[in-house]
Order: sequence, then structure tokens, then C-alpha cells
Amino acid sequence: MVSTGPPVARQISLYAVIQSILLHGPTSRADLAKRAGLSRQTISDVVLELETAGWLKPLGRTAGKPGRSAVVYEINAAAGLAAAVDLGGTKLSVAIGDLLGNALAEATVPTDTRGGTQVVEQVAGQIESLAAELNVSAKQLKIVVLGTPGVFHPGTAHIMVAPNIPGIGEVNVLGVLSDRLGVPVIIENDVNLAARGEQWRGHGTGVRNFVFIAIGTGVGMGIIADGHLLRGARGAAGEIGYLPIGGDPYDPRGFTLGTFETAVGGVGIANRYVGFGGHGGATVRDIFSALESGDAAASATIEETARLIAPAIAAVGATLDPEMVILGGSIGARPELIDAVRRILPRCTPSPPRVVASVLGSRAGLVGALGVAVDRMHDALFGVGLPATPLLAPSARRQQADLRIVQDSVG
Amino acid sequence: MVSTGPPVARQISLYAVIQSILLHGPTSRADLAKRAGLSRQTISDVVLELETAGWLKPLGRTAGKPGRSAVVYEINAAAGLAAAVDLGGTKLSVAIGDLLGNALAEATVPTDTRGGTQVVEQVAGQIESLAAELNVSAKQLKIVVLGTPGVFHPGTAHIMVAPNIPGIGEVNVLGVLSDRLGVPVIIENDVNLAARGEQWRGHGTGVRNFVFIAIGTGVGMGIIADGHLLRGARGAAGEIGYLPIGGDPYDPRGFTLGTFETAVGGVGIANRYVGFGGHGGATVRDIFSALESGDAAASATIEETARLIAPAIAAVGATLDPEMVILGGSIGARPELIDAVRRILPRCTPSPPRVVASVLGSRAGLVGALGVAVDRMHDALFGVGLPATPLLAPSARRQQADLRIVQDSVG
Amino acid sequence: MVSTGPPVARQISLYAVIQSILLHGPTSRADLAKRAGLSRQTISDVVLELETAGWLKPLGRTAGKPGRSAVVYEINAAAGLAAAVDLGGTKLSVAIGDLLGNALAEATVPTDTRGGTQVVEQVAGQIESLAAELNVSAKQLKIVVLGTPGVFHPGTAHIMVAPNIPGIGEVNVLGVLSDRLGVPVIIENDVNLAARGEQWRGHGTGVRNFVFIAIGTGVGMGIIADGHLLRGARGAAGEIGYLPIGGDPYDPRGFTLGTFETAVGGVGIANRYVGFGGHGGATVRDIFSALESGDAAASATIEETARLIAPAIAAVGATLDPEMVILGGSIGARPELIDAVRRILPRCTPSPPRVVASVLGSRAGLVGALGVAVDRMHDALFGVGLPATPLLAPSARRQQADLRIVQDSVG
Amino acid sequence: MVSTGPPVARQISLYAVIQSILLHGPTSRADLAKRAGLSRQTISDVVLELETAGWLKPLGRTAGKPGRSAVVYEINAAAGLAAAVDLGGTKLSVAIGDLLGNALAEATVPTDTRGGTQVVEQVAGQIESLAAELNVSAKQLKIVVLGTPGVFHPGTAHIMVAPNIPGIGEVNVLGVLSDRLGVPVIIENDVNLAARGEQWRGHGTGVRNFVFIAIGTGVGMGIIADGHLLRGARGAAGEIGYLPIGGDPYDPRGFTLGTFETAVGGVGIANRYVGFGGHGGATVRDIFSALESGDAAASATIEETARLIAPAIAAVGATLDPEMVILGGSIGARPELIDAVRRILPRCTPSPPRVVASVLGSRAGLVGALGVAVDRMHDALFGVGLPATPLLAPSARRQQADLRIVQDSVG
Repeated sequence: MVSTGPPVARQISLYAVIQSILLHGPTSRADLAKRAGLSRQTISDVVLELETAGWLKPLGRTAGKPGRSAVVYEINAAAGLAAAVDLGGTKLSVAIGDLLGNALAEATVPTDTRGGTQVVEQVAGQIESLAAELNVSAKQLKIVVLGTPGVFHPGTAHIMVAPNIPGIGEVNVLGVLSDRLGVPVIIENDVNLAARGEQWRGHGTGVRNFVFIAIGTGVGMGIIADGHLLRGARGAAGEIGYLPIGGDPYDPRGFTLGTFETAVGGVGIANRYVGFGGHGGATVRDIFSALESGDAAASATIEETARLIAPAIAAVGATLDPEMVILGGSIGARPELIDAVRRILPRCTPSPPRVVASVLGSRAGLVGALGVAVDRMHDALFGVGLPATPLLAPSARRQQADLRIVQDSVG
Repeated sequence: MVSTGPPVARQISLYAVIQSILLHGPTSRADLAKRAGLSRQTISDVVLELETAGWLKPLGRTAGKPGRSAVVYEINAAAGLAAAVDLGGTKLSVAIGDLLGNALAEATVPTDTRGGTQVVEQVAGQIESLAAELNVSAKQLKIVVLGTPGVFHPGTAHIMVAPNIPGIGEVNVLGVLSDRLGVPVIIENDVNLAARGEQWRGHGTGVRNFVFIAIGTGVGMGIIADGHLLRGARGAAGEIGYLPIGGDPYDPRGFTLGTFETAVGGVGIANRYVGFGGHGGATVRDIFSALESGDAAASATIEETARLIAPAIAAVGATLDPEMVILGGSIGARPELIDAVRRILPRCTPSPPRVVASVLGSRAGLVGALGVAVDRMHDALFGVGLPATPLLAPSARRQQADLRIVQDSVG
Repeated sequence: MVSTGPPVARQISLYAVIQSILLHGPTSRADLAKRAGLSRQTISDVVLELETAGWLKPLGRTAGKPGRSAVVYEINAAAGLAAAVDLGGTKLSVAIGDLLGNALAEATVPTDTRGGTQVVEQVAGQIESLAAELNVSAKQLKIVVLGTPGVFHPGTAHIMVAPNIPGIGEVNVLGVLSDRLGVPVIIENDVNLAARGEQWRGHGTGVRNFVFIAIGTGVGMGIIADGHLLRGARGAAGEIGYLPIGGDPYDPRGFTLGTFETAVGGVGIANRYVGFGGHGGATVRDIFSALESGDAAASATIEETARLIAPAIAAVGATLDPEMVILGGSIGARPELIDAVRRILPRCTPSPPRVVASVLGSRAGLVGALGVAVDRMHDALFGVGLPATPLLAPSARRQQADLRIVQDSVG
Repeated sequence: MVSTGPPVARQISLYAVIQSILLHGPTSRADLAKRAGLSRQTISDVVLELETAGWLKPLGRTAGKPGRSAVVYEINAAAGLAAAVDLGGTKLSVAIGDLLGNALAEATVPTDTRGGTQVVEQVAGQIESLAAELNVSAKQLKIVVLGTPGVFHPGTAHIMVAPNIPGIGEVNVLGVLSDRLGVPVIIENDVNLAARGEQWRGHGTGVRNFVFIAIGTGVGMGIIADGHLLRGARGAAGEIGYLPIGGDPYDPRGFTLGTFETAVGGVGIANRYVGFGGHGGATVRDIFSALESGDAAASATIEETARLIAPAIAAVGATLDPEMVILGGSIGARPELIDAVRRILPRCTPSPPRVVASVLGSRAGLVGALGVAVDRMHDALFGVGLPATPLLAPSARRQQADLRIVQDSVG
């Protein structure tokens, strides 16, 4: 059935059809031919091939003049499932989504405090359990995308600098998890994934240049530049905790956590509150509550924190020229803080970028993981440039090689 | 003569052949077939087509066993010529290069001090005059790539914020120059071009993530991220003159030129020298000379300047994670300054990036402009993805439409 | 009539009587004896001597039991007159006061814009004209105390660093003025005099350690430490315009006017307003008016200015431990600014000193000059430690030698 | 024997004689009369009185023409003894000195680590034991002057903020020690005493305005202004550890120890060394040793420390205008550090004060305590202004009331 044309050309045709339906939704063959600039015969061949393989399914017929109605095809979303994981120091969230990015199941549990391999096992268990709810085997997943704090070093396959999960740096999370599940795994910095989440289904939709700045226990930034996630030479792009802001640039006390993170991370904010006369032991959440009730120390704390964030945004603006800065994280997304930042920003830069709150909130990382998973499924299943990728029926278990995805091409 | 295969497939084959020869140099058809994974017949057809059109030419025959020698083909470099322009406040440099990026002619003259349209006219005149030296008409050039200080705003086609060339902001440089010459024109920030120059033929060769920081009269940065030039939302990425370093971040005196540029640009350095007891009227060049003869004010000036540059590099490192920082510009490339920066950098960041001097020196921008011109010629002439691009004989004047290149896809 | 006791002892007795009346007001001889612990005979002798010489005069008799009423003596305030001068860049204020510090006449005129000797002549003329109003000759004044911006250098008798009065640095103001009037002259920094004014008749009454910080066109501080005006080695104590606050401490742009003065002096504030979007040409007065009408740029300007003043007060606090900081000057005394400083100060020091507005306002310097003049008259006329000072009748013109007062013992 | 003249006049004569001999050394009566401007008869009476009381003693006769030689009198130094104490966190030094400030005995022991009352008892024991060596009873001492880190609050008689001696803040050191020894006690900040030491017998001799900056475990400054020790409203003048230098002025982490002390105190320096790659556990002494052997981290550490000290000196200069800055303390007196400060200071102030190393080194505080003790003995024994002070024989134990010395008039 396969066309006699060169495989590459056929691959491109397949890709064009899928992309067209992904972009425009259910479509008839005639419309596909019009959009792709291909002959109706070629389109018919391709659609047949995709339907046979299970990627497309007929949705129904267009309403039209009698005798002119046509079958409308949609993506068979269930033909590819993937797991998205957001692994934090306190919480572990897992979702399973389909080819269209619909989250079919989702669960959040406290992270296993024992850390290390126990946490990896917990991740695997959660995935399996969610898969079971959906009556599939975890092995059928096309990919697992796991977001976590810290820098993931592709060379060693270890997660670096993730102080909130004990022992995680000693485990080959990628290897253990993919072996355990029999599914390819991608690990990505959680803030990078949150940026992808906002790009996919948040404020960043259609914005080619923006940054997502997360402020919570730690501080980080995900960069979307010219539409792509920017990672830097060692995966450490966006590690703005190390900006020389909030302390003397030459003070090596800032070398460990970073001068900026030390100043505006959760611990820094809590210390500031105590320094300004607030009661000890207050969490950042308590400080925001105190702010509402007019507590002067809380007000000073938030204002001074905003005064450190604003020059950091100015520095990011001078470097990256983003169209938009999305503030997220448990602290960064607070409207009181964002209001203060917006008010102060024009005092430290002549061209303040637009600052908005993350629309996805604490789910940004999980959504981003799902988005990456969908991308990877699309690329692997329908992508050009992978010459030896035969189109198999989705139900047939894909060989892992088909999805061999290198870390540095995510996004 | 054109093959009956699908145009896209043929286009890809043409591209593969050209890329292979560009990458590996003169090659025989047999080797081309081996490298491209295409049949010898397809290769023969393609080579014939390219040779007929003038893009390839036989270089000679391989040495080999008797009867086994083969014709070796090379790119017909002269089949495409382009002009590269580096338009500065004091100097105007123009080069004409060929398809392989060989600079065939080059000239530098003082920039017309009257500014505005006179400068545009001067650029055109210089191009025409260089073309005449090569016995071609300027109209035959495939493209002109012009680098200049300031931010080029594609929407208005005006050059913003280029304080060193009077009146240039009021001229539609792109329109006037392309109309005047009858050749498509690309305008790009000169530091961005210098970064491209270093990527093409300098320290950045093969480095996927690096920045080029130019320090001269002004301050700027070109960013190569994941191999591509990063421009930001408004073309202002890399405008690190606005980093909140070298002064109070909340001091709006830094709003005009930028806090950092005010501190480390040429005027700032000269003022610093006077403030430290150096004689008034000294140029930065004088200060470096004084440094050699042990002048304490010069020594203090360079050291303090380096102490401001180092945290800026730290800030860039925390944001972009470059593998390398190339320092260029008439001040930035001075080894005394670079030594000082290298010595000081580890005091303000735990992970100092590698710092090197620009290898191209004051020609980095011109080389970059030539590199962009070559890229654009290759893309336009051999690129995929431009479905309506027929391969014409190089001697036939290309329609401008074929090369209609949008600003935001250079590089 | 003069007692046969040692002159020093008599001097001390005279001093004790005068001090007692200055302190407690009109007093009888009996009460004087009681307070001084001296015999009634000694007191009678001393009072007679002082009355004869003209320094005391009987006010009346105490009301008391019949036959027990007593003559009550008061200071003959008119027995000593002095001129106080506040010489500013735009205004010249002169007052003539008596031995009790009553201002008998006062006038303010615009400072002669020609500067230099013309200004000195103007000062002399104003003094003579005021004296004429009081029907005395300027020659009868005991002393002239002149306050002016800048550091007065006793060695050269020139006023250093007073940029607002052209040419004043080239004139020997002290010599010219005292020659012209035939009266001894003291020159003192105007902010120091304002501090003395507040100590004498303002918020500083009875406060042993306080500072007066003037913020207007320029910035300065007068220090009262352990009750005395502190001048430093070169008369430059309190020149807080040079504090390394409001800019990079290593930026020699701050060497001319001082980093802090550059940032918070009148010009700095006006520039800040423009930088924050306020309209150009606004005076500081305009900015405060705009603040009232809710102008955001004005609000940002005042807040940011207060944020620079607060750390300066913290620095002064860490150095001098004043009980109180009095803010004065045309800018410093504005309640909107003081409120902002008070609000912000606890954020930059754990032990913020009390901050109050100058109670004397723009007259603080003139009042201080008068206070110094009264002190000098008292010291010269009644003081111990000047062994050769005979008590002459106040009407007799004092020889200049008697009042030769060295610069570094004022206050 | 007492002259019939008024007691005050006689007191002044006694004072004049003593001062003359203190100032000029052994002197004859004729020379005393000449210098004091008093009659030879008065001088003879006074000298006889002082000799009888034990304060003066004949040294011998002047060499002169036969028949013209005269008895030369000197102070009977042994007529008044006092104890000076320097109580530090690790060492306790005690000296006993005489009326001329000769240290007759001196001892240093480790401070009792139990702190609190044990330390007070240790001080008393050391004084008694030294006195015993000199064959006198501790009760015969005229005064004890004790220097210690921290602010001594006269109102509560407690030592505030002396973190290095546990429990010392809970003890009424003044009361316990004076009760225990039966001798009046003065407590003073140790850095203030070191400043007095330098004024008395160090670099500050004859300098009316200077500061002594101590940098060791902690940071402090003693101020001599117009010849007098300046204490401020709460005894906290010179607490420059709280200068807003070395960190963000608005960072309340600096509220506890002070932003400046946190940055340049011993712990800050050791942390800086580790941050710059030096080995952990190094003491500041080790760092200076490493500096000698060319260790780059040590070099960076000292240079960066000097770069923080220099702006602090600039701030002190702008506030106090000292003629000289004496650097002392175990860190501050290191020549390597002072050289670095001297080199850097002109980069952060246009009028750098002279910077010298403490000449008294670690004994500055003890010397200063002795100097204060001598002053107090002279004031109490020979001073005017204490009307009821009869001159008793030195051997008679003085009533404590005679020496009731209030804290705020030392120096």
C-alpha cells in the first residue's frame, strides 16, 4: 500500500497530514489536500495508511450538500500515552496523558522522605498505579517525562544540585527508572518544564520569547527563546539564583545557593521577616497572611523582596529581551508580590517587560512535562528526520530505539 | 533536464549534494552517493543539473588506479556574490565575498560625518566601487548584509538607538539602500554579527552556546544559543549596557545609555581615569599605553573596569550558561583587561565561564556580515522549505522575491 | 573698687554671677550669693562692678515682706550687639542681636549674582544698614558671625568648595569683611551653624548628641557631640555628601560633588524625577506639589530619595550614635520626605535614631549664627581663661585684640 | 599650712604646679613661678604643701653657678597607683601603674571560660596578685579602669553586646568589682580605650582628631574628636560594625552583628577564604601565612577585605574628618592588609585620610586603660572643679566619694 515515492517524501506527507489535523482539528481529505498542496490521491493513500496503523480515526461526516458530505478524520488520541511527573521535595505529581495532551489520570502524593532510590521506586509505583486505573500497562507508555529541581547533567545521567530530595544525586534516575518501567525516560529541570507548560497551555501560548521565573523554596528560570527552550552549555541556563543581585557580588557567601536565591528564596524571605520584627517561625504563607492583616513587618518584607526581584528581571530583560515575564512558584505567583514587582520595575529599567502571574500555578511543571511528552510522541511517531522510523500500529509496542530521544533535543 | 521526481525530494537531493561539498570540499560523484545514501544515478542527475546551472564545476580528476580516476566537483564560488558592511560611528568597512565566504575585495573609509542619508549613500557608493573593482555590477550581488550599532526594528525598518551616527534613526536604511542598489538588504546589530563572525570563523566555531561581549564606545552582546543567534522579542537581546551593574539599580541616570554601559563604555573608562588622577583628555588607547609604563591611575582604571565586567559576565552566565565568553571591541579585546577579568571572575561566581579574546578583532562584525550573507545565499539558492525556489543559472539575475528574507530568520 | 583678690578668682566670681542671671533670669544679690556659694560681700562687690560697667541693670525690687524686698538685677542685653549672617547662593539674611540673643533687626535680600567681592560688600552694606535702623554704628558690633556653604579653611581664610557663590573662593572674606567693618568676624559652615541653631533654640535644646542633616541644593551635616560642635581635622566633619551611598563606592564620578550629594541633592532629585517619567524642568518644589496630586513619578522620586537617605542616617548612626537626627534644608525638612525616611529607616538599621524635622526651618543657620555670636560675646566679655580680659564698660569700643577668636574654638 | 587665699585660687595654683611638672618634668620653684606667672612666695607655699602631702619630692639640685643651684622637684609617682584591665574573650591582661603612667607590673592569663561572675572574680584576683607583687594592697589603688568588648551602659551598669564572654551581660561588673576590691571602677569599651592608648602613647599623640579602627573577631572604632573620646548618646559611637557596607543595606541579616562586621570580622574573612577556594578551618592567621607563600585564595581574601574596609574609612572620613586612621586589632594591624587598604582607598574617596598601623598593637587597650586611670587620678587629686576635694597625703586612703567618677566624663 505504501507509495512508491521516496520514503522521505512519504514521511513528509504523513507529517503534513498529522500536523494539519493537530493544528486544525478534525478534517476531511479534501481539506487536507488543499492545505498541504498535495494531490487528493496522495492524501487518500496517506490517510488510509494512518488509519490502518491506528493514528487516525473517522469522526463522522461533514454536513454538506447531499452527495457532497465527506468523512472527517481526527487523531486517535488514545494511540499514544505518556506519563508526566513533577517530582518536588515535598510533593510528587504524576499524570498520564494521550496524544492530544489530554490528562487522563492524575495523582499527587507526598514525596517519600527517605529520598534516593525509594523516591525513584515511588515514581515508578505511581506511574504503574495510574496506568492500571486506565487499564493499560505502564510498559505501553511511549515515554515518561520527569521534571525535578536541579540541573540534570546528560553526561552522567545524574540530577545535580537538588538539595530538597536527599540522596537523589547519587542515583542514576534516568537509567533506573527506564529499566524499571521499560519505557524511555526524559529528565528535565522542573522550571524549564513549567516554562514549557506556560508555552503550551498558559500565558506563553504564541509568545516566541518569554521567561518563566519560579520563586519558591528555590529560585529558577525557564527560557523560551525564539520558541525553543534554552538550556545553555551545561543545562544551567536560567539558574538566576546566581545573579549578583541582593548582596555584594564579591561575597562568596552567595556561591553556595547563589546570591539572588539566598536573598529571595523562601528562607531568605522568612529571615527578612524576622529581621524586620516579624515573629520567628513564620512561613512565607504566614507572611502573606500577615500582609493582609496590615502587619508592617510583612509589608516591608514583601516590598523589599520585590525590590530585589525587579533588578533581576531588569537583568534578564537586558540579556534576553523577553516579551513577557511569567512569575510562578509558591511565592512568585502571589498577586501581592507581583503587584509590588510591577510597581517597582519601571524604577530600575527604562523598558520593563510585561510581568504576569503563572496561569497554571503549581501545575505548570506537570503540564509542561505532559507537553514535552506529547511533543516527543509526535516527533517520534510522525517526525521527519528520523529516516528509519516505520509507522507501526499504535497498539504494537514500539521498540525503544524508535523513541531514542536525546536529552538535548527536547522542546 | 529537471528530474521527474517530486520537487521536494529533488530539492533535498540538491541540498544534500551542495552541503556535502560545502562541508567536505571537492568530492567525486561516487563519494557523494556514498555520503548521501542516494543512488549513483540520482547523484549523477543532480550534479549534472547543478553544473549546468553553474553552481558546481569540475576541479579535476582524483588520483587513483588507472581507469578508476573520477571527476571531482567543487562549488563554483563565484556563482554568488554578496556584500558585507560594517557601519560604525567612525569607520565604514565593506567587503564583497563569494559563495564560499572568500572575501574578494574589502575597503574601509571614515564614516561620513554628516550622517543620515549621506551615510546610506556612502554605503551604496562603497559597494558599487568594490563591485567595479571585481568587474561586476552591484546589481548582480545576491544580498547585502549591513551591521550597525543599535537595535534594528523590523517593523519600522529603522535603526533605533544608534547614537554615534547622527540622523540615521530618521532614515529607512533598509528601503533606501535596497532600492538604490536593487539588491535585497539585511540589517543586523553589529555585535550580533560579530558573534556570528566568531561562530563562523573564530573562537565560536563548533561551540553551540557562547556569547560575544563587545566593549568599545558602547557595550553590547551577541548571543549564540543552541547554535543560533538569539535576538529577543524586540531585537534587543544582548543589550547588556542596561544591566543593573556599575551603579545603583534604582538610579535612572542609567536609563539613557544603560547603567553598565555608562560605567564601562569608553567615556566611563576615560572619566574613571581622570577621577583616579589620570590626565584629562586621555583616550582609552592612551590609558592602555600608560598602563604599560606603570601609571597607577591607569592600573586602577583597568582593574576597576574589570571588576564591573566580571559581575556582568557572572550575570550572563547565570542567565545563559554559555560555554565561552568572547570579549571583543576596541576595549574588550585588550589582553590587559581580559587578564584582569579572568583573575577577578572567580571572585564573583562559583562557576566562571571561559573567557577568551576575540580572534577576529575589529573585523569580527564584517566577517559575521559575510557569514550571514553566505548563509542567506545558501538557504536561498539551495535551501529546502522554500517550495517555489527554482534553481536558476547563477548568472541569471535572481528575482528579488526569491530572496525576500525576513529579518527574524537570519542566522 | 576692684577686689584685691587674685584676678582669676574675681573673674570666676564675675562669670558665676553673669551665668547665674543668664540661666535663671533676673535675680537678687542674696539669691546670687546662695547659688554661687560666695559671700554676700563678694557678690555685692561683683554686682556693683558689673552694674558700673554697664553689663547689669536693676530691673526693680522683689515683692516680699515689707523691709525685705530686694533689688533684682538683669543682664543689660543692649550692652553687646552682634551681627549674624546667613550667606547662601540665592539669599543673604542678616540679623543683629543683643547679649541675650534677641534678634533686634533682620533682613533678607537676594544674593548679589556677581559673586566675589561684590557679595562681601553686600554683606557689609546689609550689616551697616541694619545697624543704622537700630541707631548704632556697625563699628559698635562686638562680632560678626557669617555662615556660608562650603568648608572654611582657617589657614588660608578662604571659603573652600562653595560652588553656589561665584568667585567667593578667591576672596579673603574674613579679612576683607573685618577690615571693612572694623569688627572681628567668624566664618562658619552654614550647616554647622544650623546645628548650633537647633541646639540653641530648636529640637537640639538639651540634647548632648545630635546631628543636623541639611538636604537642599547640596547636602551637609552639622554634628553636636557631647554638646559641642564637631569640626574634624580640616573643618570637613559632616561632609556626608561624600558618603559612599547612592552609587558604586568605587565610581570616581562621585569624587566631585560626592556620591551621596550627587544622588540626593536637588539636581539629583530633579534628574530622578525625569528618569521616572516626570516632566523635565520641574523643580524639587514642583515635585513635592506633584506628589500631593498623586503623580506616580513624584511618588517614586521621593521614595527612592528616602531610600538613599535612610542608609546614610544608618551610617551616621553607626559612627556617631546621635540621640536624634534633625532633617533640615529646603528638601530635607519636607514632611513627606521625613515620613518616608522614618518608615524606611528601620529596614536598614536595627537601632534607628529618632528623626525630626528642623523646627527653625530656613532660619536655622541665621539663628545658629546669632547663637555663636552670643556665645562669643559671653566668652569674651565674661569668660575665664582669657587672663588679660579687663571688664570695660560696654559702650567703650572693645579693642579687636580682646575678641581675637580662633576659628577652631567656636561653639 | 593652707594659704589664706580663696580655696579655688589655691586649688588653681596647685593644679598649675602639678601640670607644669607633669608637662615639663622635674622643675625648680623659680621656673615654676616663671611658667605659672605666680609670685615665688605663692609657688613656695604650694610646693611645700604638695611636698608635705607626698605628691612632690625633691629630685636633686640643678647644676648652676655656685650659690645659684636650686632644688628640682618631681612628681612622686608612687603616690598614686591604679589598675588597668583589658578583658577579652580569650585573654585577660592586667597592669598596675603609677601617677606618671609607668606600668609597674603586668600579667596576662587566659580568660576564665566559665564566664560571668567567675571572670569578675578572676579580674579581682589578678589585680590583688599583681598588687601583692608590688607589696601594696589592692585597696590602696586609686582606681581600676577595665576595658572590654561591647557597649557599657552606665544606667544599668551592665556590659551590653559582648558575645565573647559568656554570661558577662548578666553580671553588674562595675558593682561587684568595686565592692570586691573596695576601689572605684570605670568600665569602658576596649576599642575606645585603645584609641585613648594611641592618643596617650601611640600614633595619636598630639593629634586632635583621629580614629582607631579595630578589626579582629569583631569590628569597632574609637573616636578622638577635638582631643576627646566621643561616645555618643548611648555609648555606641564608633560601632561601625553596623555600617551599611559589605552587603545590601536593606538586608536585615546584617542587623545582628552588623553588615560591615559580618563582612570583615574574623569569621567573615575565614568564610571568604573558603569561598575563594581556600581550605576550610583556616584561621585568619593561617590566611596571612598562606598569603606570604603566594596562595591565590589568600590574596583574593585580603584584597576583597581591604575593598570593604576602604569604603568604611571613606564613610568615617566623610562623617568625622579625622586627620588619621589608626588600624589595629589582630587583623586590622596586619601590614599586608594596611598596604592593600592604602592602595585602594584613593579609589573610593577624593580625600583619603592617612592610614597607619597601631603602634601599640595588642597592648593598645591596656595602655589606654592605664592612661584613663592616670587622667582620673590627676583629675581627682589635683583637678579644679571638685570644690570639696582636700589634698590629703597620698598614703591616706582616699574616700571613695572623692573619686566618684561618672562614666560619661572619662577621657
